[in-house]
Amino acid sequence: HLSKLPKVETTIFTVMSRLAHQHKAINLSQGFPDFPTDPKLIELVTKAMKAGYNQYAPMPGIYSLREVIAEKIESLHKKTYDPEHEITITAGATQAIFTIISTFIRPGDEVLLFKPAYDCYEPAIVVNGGIPVFVQLQGKEFKVDWSEVKNKISSKTKMVIINTPHNPSGTVLSKEDMLRLEAVLADTDIILLSDEVYEHIVFDGKAHQSASRFPGLAERTFICASFGKTFHNTGWKTGYCVAPKQLMEEFRKTHQFNVFCANHPMQRAFATYLEDASSYLELPAFYERKRDAFLEMISGSKFSFTPSKGTYFQLLDYSAITDESDVDFAKRLCTEYGLASIPISVFNVNNEDNRLLRFCFAKKEETLQKAARILNTTQ
Amino acid sequence: HLSKLPKVETTIFTVMSRLAHQHKAINLSQGFPDFPTDPKLIELVTKAMKAGYNQYAPMPGIYSLREVIAEKIESLHKKTYDPEHEITITAGATQAIFTIISTFIRPGDEVLLFKPAYDCYEPAIVVNGGIPVFVQLQGKEFKVDWSEVKNKISSKTKMVIINTPHNPSGTVLSKEDMLRLEAVLADTDIILLSDEVYEHIVFDGKAHQSASRFPGLAERTFICASFGKTFHNTGWKTGYCVAPKQLMEEFRKTHQFNVFCANHPMQRAFATYLEDASSYLELPAFYERKRDAFLEMISGSKFSFTPSKGTYFQLLDYSAITDESDVDFAKRLCTEYGLASIPISVFNVNNEDNRLLRFCFAKKEETLQKAARILNTTQ
Ligand SMILES: CSCCC(=O)C(=O)O
Ligand SMILES: CSCCC(=O)C(=O)O
Repeated sequence: HLSKLPKVETTIFTVMSRLAHQHKAINLSQGFPDFPTDPKLIELVTKAMKAGYNQYAPMPGIYSLREVIAEKIESLHKKTYDPEHEITITAGATQAIFTIISTFIRPGDEVLLFKPAYDCYEPAIVVNGGIPVFVQLQGKEFKVDWSEVKNKISSKTKMVIINTPHNPSGTVLSKEDMLRLEAVLADTDIILLSDEVYEHIVFDGKAHQSASRFPGLAERTFICASFGKTFHNTGWKTGYCVAPKQLMEEFRKTHQFNVFCANHPMQRAFATYLEDASSYLELPAFYERKRDAFLEMISGSKFSFTPSKGTYFQLLDYSAITDESDVDFAKRLCTEYGLASIPISVFNVNNEDNRLLRFCFAKKEETLQKAARILNTTQ
Repeated sequence: HLSKLPKVETTIFTVMSRLAHQHKAINLSQGFPDFPTDPKLIELVTKAMKAGYNQYAPMPGIYSLREVIAEKIESLHKKTYDPEHEITITAGATQAIFTIISTFIRPGDEVLLFKPAYDCYEPAIVVNGGIPVFVQLQGKEFKVDWSEVKNKISSKTKMVIINTPHNPSGTVLSKEDMLRLEAVLADTDIILLSDEVYEHIVFDGKAHQSASRFPGLAERTFICASFGKTFHNTGWKTGYCVAPKQLMEEFRKTHQFNVFCANHPMQRAFATYLEDASSYLELPAFYERKRDAFLEMISGSKFSFTPSKGTYFQLLDYSAITDESDVDFAKRLCTEYGLASIPISVFNVNNEDNRLLRFCFAKKEETLQKAARILNTTQ
């Protein structure tokens, strides 16, 4: 019995985290923090359970959470939302993404997406019989070639997927990029899936350019967001998506039969927490300090880099050390030196290998120091 | 933008729970308990969060939980399991079901299933381009006509879905049924999806006939199970599925891109709890008392019934009261009398209407009494 994903293997994140575990390596591979989530949030989950919120939540999510999300994202998105019809709570952003694609992509539909890309988009397209059409991001800055995008849009294009801030490269789409995208999609029916799970992690004083800020995009866009990435609890599997009413209505038809609803006590906790939370406003500075500290620590190493512009990932170029493939080197770095990372070629068109590894710097100072010590002595 | 489910509407469970809420009605519609989950489980979730289990769980679920599940189900399934390869923790049984169907069903594949049926199977098939082939359960006992099943199996049949104990009818498949099914599927490649979320709720001294007890079935079967149904916390969205290694490997390819993993602190809590939990062994007696009490309370009413054999649902025949359609009567019972239930016709082939409503008796004595008072005076 072959599935519809005969060629898919266990995700690189699972593979590297396992390898890290086996070799007791420092794990900068999979993207999650090694510092605690706010104890207040833990208390709120406990309170919700004790108050009896242990049965199904309403299918689109509890209303109070949708309401407070609408309030909070207004300034970031420069747009107001109707919580009743335009916001749905999901079991993480990944579930939102899989469900969006399952809702709209039919056999033969083309979906345009950029490479390197987070690894969940392509299989979701393939499971639904869609055809992924890839555009390779260019150069050390991972720029979009918008004329290539324009050329690759066809009458079969049903959806475009963007991800800003961008995992794994740490690049962000500029206002100009978004305007180009808006122009490319004008006069089409194409749906935009905008994965913005790192929306609060943008550096160097730049503003996150949410697709929702551009009217010609917002009207066709699903924005996917993650509490796990923002509040340091990726294991709570709670996120949400926002879209115009008509798109959201269609989304919910599938969502209700995929997971029905997201975890209820976690939703209650986030609803109360968000009422007076502003911690996420400190995330850019918080993670910028970590990025800067990490890059400072390895400034004497043989790795070269362009500082990450967003997300909690940093790419390091190891071409001055070895000409091994990035997969081989990532494995050796883990098994021999005790430091796990993610090779980038697995996410590229034709596995293009630019000798880049991705390191997650959402870690305690101490963890970053241990990692730096290894990087500074790697041969 | 039409989705692939143009005709699907909001699930009847959401519709009726909303109506119940609006009319402050007693809600015996959606299937969830109104009594608390074990405080010990709540403490264990809190403990897990405080101990820092707030980041991604391993993709197939934490090993200790899979291990204790393997131990526990051995006697029920009369079969041993390899927790590494044959068990995956999911964000509820619904997510397992959607993922199984998405993994294997391609456009044109036929899936045979029984009606009335829980409402999540058909849309999952349709989203994947599959063709649902229905067999209507027969008579007041909702019997399977196995010769019809045999006739409807074709070279295009990729999967059969069963559900025992059966929601909404409360019937259970007998050993003879399972042997008939085993015979029908012999010498085919057909995958069996066995939804057994009410596995621990079987009455009158009968044993649950898990598909896993029948070697000719087990080798081709995904069993879907739910902690929410068993431990009274449907809002925690934690369940699991079991299948032979080869099938499970394919399942995980899709699962990892749908939700990636299930909620981590809840998994930790269940792993510890199950080590010395036997409360589920008391579920048959516990729910049988509720069923008996409820039926006793309404014995003087104009509703007639065949006692439920499993699940926490009871069908009531209201044909002695009115010849309204079951949808109309369910609405009137909710809005005028203040009692919400589920009409069965929505789950039947051609909406066949046998004047049956489904009532959930997973409720406190007091709730059942209030409901009975209404049923005893309904005209
Ligand atoms: C779901 S595992 C991968 C986590 C993540 O976002 C990443 O490492 O890129
Ligand atoms: C997911 S809402 C429906 C719950 C349920 O199992 C039922 O009422 O049948």
